[in-house]
Amino acid sequence: MQIDLNCDMGEGYGRYVLGNDEAVIPLVSSVNVACGFHASDPSTMRRTVKLAKEWNVAVGAHPSFPDRVGFGRREMSASPAEIRDDVIYQLGALLAFCKAEGVPLRHVKPHGALYNLAARDIEAATAIAAAVRSVDPSLYLVGLCGSAMVAAARETGLKFAPEAFADRGYRKDGRLVSRKEHGAVLDDPEVVAERVVRMVRDGEVITVDGTGIPIDPKTVCVHGDTPGVVALLRAIRSRLEREKIGVKSFSG
Amino acid sequence: MQIDLNCDMGEGYGRYVLGNDEAVIPLVSSVNVACGFHASDPSTMRRTVKLAKEWNVAVGAHPSFPDRVGFGRREMSASPAEIRDDVIYQLGALLAFCKAEGVPLRHVKPHGALYNLAARDIEAATAIAAAVRSVDPSLYLVGLCGSAMVAAARETGLKFAPEAFADRGYRKDGRLVSRKEHGAVLDDPEVVAERVVRMVRDGEVITVDGTGIPIDPKTVCVHGDTPGVVALLRAIRSRLEREKIGVKSFSG
Amino acid sequence: MQIDLNCDMGEGYGRYVLGNDEAVIPLVSSVNVACGFHASDPSTMRRTVKLAKEWNVAVGAHPSFPDRVGFGRREMSASPAEIRDDVIYQLGALLAFCKAEGVPLRHVKPHGALYNLAARDIEAATAIAAAVRSVDPSLYLVGLCGSAMVAAARETGLKFAPEAFADRGYRKDGRLVSRKEHGAVLDDPEVVAERVVRMVRDGEVITVDGTGIPIDPKTVCVHGDTPGVVALLRAIRSRLEREKIGVKSFSG
Amino acid sequence: MQIDLNCDMGEGYGRYVLGNDEAVIPLVSSVNVACGFHASDPSTMRRTVKLAKEWNVAVGAHPSFPDRVGFGRREMSASPAEIRDDVIYQLGALLAFCKAEGVPLRHVKPHGALYNLAARDIEAATAIAAAVRSVDPSLYLVGLCGSAMVAAARETGLKFAPEAFADRGYRKDGRLVSRKEHGAVLDDPEVVAERVVRMVRDGEVITVDGTGIPIDPKTVCVHGDTPGVVALLRAIRSRLEREKIGVKSFSG
Repeated sequence: MQIDLNCDMGEGYGRYVLGNDEAVIPLVSSVNVACGFHASDPSTMRRTVKLAKEWNVAVGAHPSFPDRVGFGRREMSASPAEIRDDVIYQLGALLAFCKAEGVPLRHVKPHGALYNLAARDIEAATAIAAAVRSVDPSLYLVGLCGSAMVAAARETGLKFAPEAFADRGYRKDGRLVSRKEHGAVLDDPEVVAERVVRMVRDGEVITVDGTGIPIDPKTVCVHGDTPGVVALLRAIRSRLEREKIGVKSFSG
Repeated sequence: MQIDLNCDMGEGYGRYVLGNDEAVIPLVSSVNVACGFHASDPSTMRRTVKLAKEWNVAVGAHPSFPDRVGFGRREMSASPAEIRDDVIYQLGALLAFCKAEGVPLRHVKPHGALYNLAARDIEAATAIAAAVRSVDPSLYLVGLCGSAMVAAARETGLKFAPEAFADRGYRKDGRLVSRKEHGAVLDDPEVVAERVVRMVRDGEVITVDGTGIPIDPKTVCVHGDTPGVVALLRAIRSRLEREKIGVKSFSG
Repeated sequence: MQIDLNCDMGEGYGRYVLGNDEAVIPLVSSVNVACGFHASDPSTMRRTVKLAKEWNVAVGAHPSFPDRVGFGRREMSASPAEIRDDVIYQLGALLAFCKAEGVPLRHVKPHGALYNLAARDIEAATAIAAAVRSVDPSLYLVGLCGSAMVAAARETGLKFAPEAFADRGYRKDGRLVSRKEHGAVLDDPEVVAERVVRMVRDGEVITVDGTGIPIDPKTVCVHGDTPGVVALLRAIRSRLEREKIGVKSFSG
Repeated sequence: MQIDLNCDMGEGYGRYVLGNDEAVIPLVSSVNVACGFHASDPSTMRRTVKLAKEWNVAVGAHPSFPDRVGFGRREMSASPAEIRDDVIYQLGALLAFCKAEGVPLRHVKPHGALYNLAARDIEAATAIAAAVRSVDPSLYLVGLCGSAMVAAARETGLKFAPEAFADRGYRKDGRLVSRKEHGAVLDDPEVVAERVVRMVRDGEVITVDGTGIPIDPKTVCVHGDTPGVVALLRAIRSRLEREKIGVKSFSG
């Protein structure tokens, strides 16, 4: 039994630093690398790919709407064609750094508002899947368990890695509790670790209403910018170890 | 005997149109496609690559300093590492559209102020050459005949295509007359066409001082944004035809 | 009896030209000047303000969502505070050019997707009105007749200039026919001119369904980027003249 | 006897934080507020102006070359007209937030590469001075003691506040030691504090060569992003107090 732990990475920009990539990367098996639209810049991308290579974690692209000041968290009424082309552009930019550093690119996971849109909107999800396929059909698409992205990946003929969130509350319909509502974020490392084990071992997550719903993630996301992320990741890993669940990239 | 005719292309941006790509592309054998830093955007890049595919012309990347409002024409004191990473980023972005459209990428030609800097500064030229090599060592680098880029390509182990300018005045030292000075731009189609033939057939160009200097281009650039570019290109092609000089991409 | 004719202006960017400001400006009484977020740049703004001064037309700011590649036509889920601050920023930038050229700033009209959002969303409309008021409470706000902007201006204590569109189809509820639907745009100069007269003289516009609805504009917008805009404006002015309706800025 | 202590402020961007404005602002008498070209965004500008109001420090604009990824530290070959218009734009944007918060704008100090260019290039310095004058002739221009900016301000008819750097090494010609060289930055708080006193009380600074040169600053800059800035400022203030030198904005 095994699971992938993923984290967004390389989200600095120019002089600006965000998160603590060096501390987080030893504890995850996959990273989603920002591509310059919501965060990052060419030199930050290179450094991040190098860091991933050093730690031998799987590298994925983390494309976004073009909204740096809003950190890609604001939905934009972009057309499917615009979304597709924006994803191709960002994917290619990261691919070039992977080539330059001799690191394979493994997956694509949309960022922020684009992720959320793709989770509920099949047109947007399909645009993203089509973009990925047109550049490299061997890449995995990563998206929310049970969302529109599952269907988009299947119809496009892409491999899909369903994702769960370690530290986020779930609703009965399988979607995440909005950050504006109570129960959106969990921060007790032991509670979060137990939750991850339950997802992976038992295929279940307890919703904010207290009922269990089925969930079957191939990868579990931990947010790199939450203050206690290192303690959280350590608790998760130690709990997984006790259960003899390996931590390994889904992409091989 | 043959020569390549190249033109910058895809330099629109969002709603903005620049040049007349549809009219120019039938008359050239290579195009340099803007990559989003001085001009273009993802959807414009896709359209431009598609157009190049339709006309079966060789596609190259046209990376720039990050200066959209200045159209990449303002020199910036960027470090060699920044230049290298900026070129990798842009190159990768275009490569992804080439893959998506099934078109090979053939060459890289820096744009505007970056071109001029690389012509005289071996550090900048080497940064560009290193960037290209790290992404795809089979690509050609395109740069000014007799400039620092020749040495940079040689030392990096890249193929190089020396370039001459059909409609620009030359100084005795082989550099271009500054656009601020008299004799910088030639606009009589017959004069320009004759000049191109002389460059290709005789390996010579007449400078603003009236003396001939040796020149040995593999590709001749015509600026797509000069008003009479279509007439200019027609004159050049008809003159080349009379001399039985073929027009064909240097990259094969 | 009189009416204001307004047109968006200064929507070039760097090397890029859009519209034909020199041909249009003699025919209007107010201009809405782009402020750098969807179009324009500092030097274009200066030129546009100078042009407005030359022709003695009333100058307004035309703030937008920050989306240059999408020309401000894509709605973004920005917060009211973000909208307010973005408007203050743009307004201030234009004000500085007005000061530098000795031209008064008269009004503010949101652009594109921000205009449409403000027409239906009172929170967005209020954020814009609050921004304007905080910078200069003597400015007019310009917005769609009968929209949420009317209430926002009233509650904020701003003067309001209700706007009608000369060349756009109207629905029975007073909103514009979407550009994706039939009847969205009218292009016959005589039809458009007649329509403007009816709006101004009779306070009525005929909807796509053929029924008349009341309308009471203080300003009528003509889009500067429609191909036949000069002919359209001439037809409107000549028709207004026949009716002895003066063309004059609402703000002055 | 008195002196102004100034610090750059509001240099975050979107989600990104830089420096520790809250800790620094109680210790200075003037702040230079970033205007969105090298750092900051509309909402950060508003917050920074509010903070300055709370602490009753003098507010200045801190305009830059348009280079966010390079933090305005890369020189660009912009024309004087471009520099002038870029400064007007940024100045106006900040002025609008000052109006919205009821805070007067007092001065303008160019940032980074633009500051350095203006220190040695009279054309650039004059472009900046002309920009400031055209927007508000009562503003102070802040620039390096003994630099080209002195002449530019005088010729333009602007008030000028010559600036010294508390923690930077000086050369015999009065310019700063380059950050690439030894002796560029001083970090011992007592040494720096003593140095400031010497500048203000004795009108002298000791260069890296050990000789004293005359200096007559109206304002002394401390960099907000140096790690020990708070300790540094405390040492300076306590040393100034002992000498009965007041800390007060030069602008009144």
